[in-house]
Amino acid sequence: MSNFELIQSASDRLAPVVRETPLLTSPFLDKIAERRVLIKAECLQHTGSFKFRGGWSAISALSPQKREKGVIAFSSGNHAQGVAYAAREYGCPATLVIPSDAPELKIANTRDLGATVVLYDRDGENREGIGKKLAEEQGLTLIRPYDDPQVIAGQGTAGLEIAKQAEKAGIKTADVLVCCGGGGLTSGIALALEKTAPGLRARPVEPEGFDDGTRSLASGDVETNTRHGGSLCDAIVTPSPGVLTFPVMQRLCGPGIVVTEDEALRAMALAWQRLKIVLEPGGAVALAAALFHGDSIDGPSVIAVTTGGNVDQLVFARAMATLATQ
Amino acid sequence: MSNFELIQSASDRLAPVVRETPLLTSPFLDKIAERRVLIKAECLQHTGSFKFRGGWSAISALSPQKREKGVIAFSSGNHAQGVAYAAREYGCPATLVIPSDAPELKIANTRDLGATVVLYDRDGENREGIGKKLAEEQGLTLIRPYDDPQVIAGQGTAGLEIAKQAEKAGIKTADVLVCCGGGGLTSGIALALEKTAPGLRARPVEPEGFDDGTRSLASGDVETNTRHGGSLCDAIVTPSPGVLTFPVMQRLCGPGIVVTEDEALRAMALAWQRLKIVLEPGGAVALAAALFHGDSIDGPSVIAVTTGGNVDQLVFARAMATLATQ
Repeated sequence: MSNFELIQSASDRLAPVVRETPLLTSPFLDKIAERRVLIKAECLQHTGSFKFRGGWSAISALSPQKREKGVIAFSSGNHAQGVAYAAREYGCPATLVIPSDAPELKIANTRDLGATVVLYDRDGENREGIGKKLAEEQGLTLIRPYDDPQVIAGQGTAGLEIAKQAEKAGIKTADVLVCCGGGGLTSGIALALEKTAPGLRARPVEPEGFDDGTRSLASGDVETNTRHGGSLCDAIVTPSPGVLTFPVMQRLCGPGIVVTEDEALRAMALAWQRLKIVLEPGGAVALAAALFHGDSIDGPSVIAVTTGGNVDQLVFARAMATLATQ
Repeated sequence: MSNFELIQSASDRLAPVVRETPLLTSPFLDKIAERRVLIKAECLQHTGSFKFRGGWSAISALSPQKREKGVIAFSSGNHAQGVAYAAREYGCPATLVIPSDAPELKIANTRDLGATVVLYDRDGENREGIGKKLAEEQGLTLIRPYDDPQVIAGQGTAGLEIAKQAEKAGIKTADVLVCCGGGGLTSGIALALEKTAPGLRARPVEPEGFDDGTRSLASGDVETNTRHGGSLCDAIVTPSPGVLTFPVMQRLCGPGIVVTEDEALRAMALAWQRLKIVLEPGGAVALAAALFHGDSIDGPSVIAVTTGGNVDQLVFARAMATLATQ
């Protein structure tokens, strides 16, 4: 199957369960951006992020035999919850390998979704080693967060929705800004738009200091971040674009945009005030680019994919505090 | 036209602009409620509340001549924003009569939506008098917040969506809990469900101390609240059920449910945490009833209509503080 056929097939498998998330607008945000801004609210997806799409796509593509043995993933975040939720609905055992210093609530949520949680010491142990051992012993299938064709296809189903919703809104040409970590969602959306809305162009958005995708697209080589953590935008921090995702991004995506953490926090606050949605910093960078980096964007309309809303209270309070000054 | 035909006609007029708001779920909320909870997220409607539906329905039903002269409404809240936004999209002048002690932001938002704001002194002046004078002088059409057949029909379009979405979710029988002020939304939804999903039954939910609808349904007479303000749930505080809405509610609705302000705040926090949506207290009472008043609800599933998200930061922070104890 071609990449696009994989997306169509994933869309068929997701149809009974996925939420078609709305494309939101606000005249107040249009005024700030000085153009029409349409916000694809994937924070409203099951588990609070788009990652449910990829998790469900991958698990539903397995043979019944493989599903019965179970799946394994390395993540404490949105990918973990997406995989755990999809596995639970499918009655498929899921093992999540999570660093022991991950937030309590994330570990509890993953357990509450019925997954087996294996904690490891981020400094002393190697998660790939632990995962490989468990996978071999128990016959588990590894579900990678982005470098997996079925995961990319699942994320791409968001692109099919964007194409349809943009057409209904009368938009034929626009940049589609996507919060970008390893590039699974960005490349999936780009592949979907290539066939269904060729006037829409996906562009990755990243936080300052973790702009590997933007730099890689600019240089034409896979670039790596010097820091590997410590960002408010933890959901989209990856060392470098993926082996499968980068060639797709290189072929189809426009240049990346880099925003500051403060801009991400301000976008979160405006999303709360004007759209009534909850975003995490990493899920708000695309909206931040649409609102505060208009000079980097062409055309009278822009689409921003707000990818997740799994944020803790303290970080959310920091975002809300920016309302006093904007 | 029958009431139901009015809703169908309003639905046709709203189709190009209204958001079909999603029906959200969370396994974590199901666990608290001990049943399946489906949340109709009308806070995601244009202007942050369902009131856009009624405003658009009423303005789109006017003759071009009347629309050209303009409309007038008394409100500082969600009805004002719904009317102002709909009027702006229609190029119809809108005058909003707002108490001078209303929050600055609400006044500013209404002005930013292009409406003419007329401030009055809540203690010394009579808003009906001011409104009547303006309406006569300028030939404006008054749009009442609930006692208007076209407004009820517009709110009823949310009921058509609920019927369709519940069917897709496999739900044939359930209570549909609705945050209730004057009863425009409650009666509109009840009328829509009567024809399209007779197994779904609308029930009003109100805050303690402002339970005029619940008491009226119980006694069979129009009951009045002793207090007229001072509730966190200001969006749904009305003196008594409407002249047009109460007979509909009496014929079609199940008993009302009354929740505390604290329960509304806790529901807001859980909606933030589990659904990634922003609610105001008055827009959260139906979810509070679903989560914390399960004894008053029958059946394995319940639908809660969360009606608005226009809340200020201080009240929202109070809601978030409840997370520490729940």
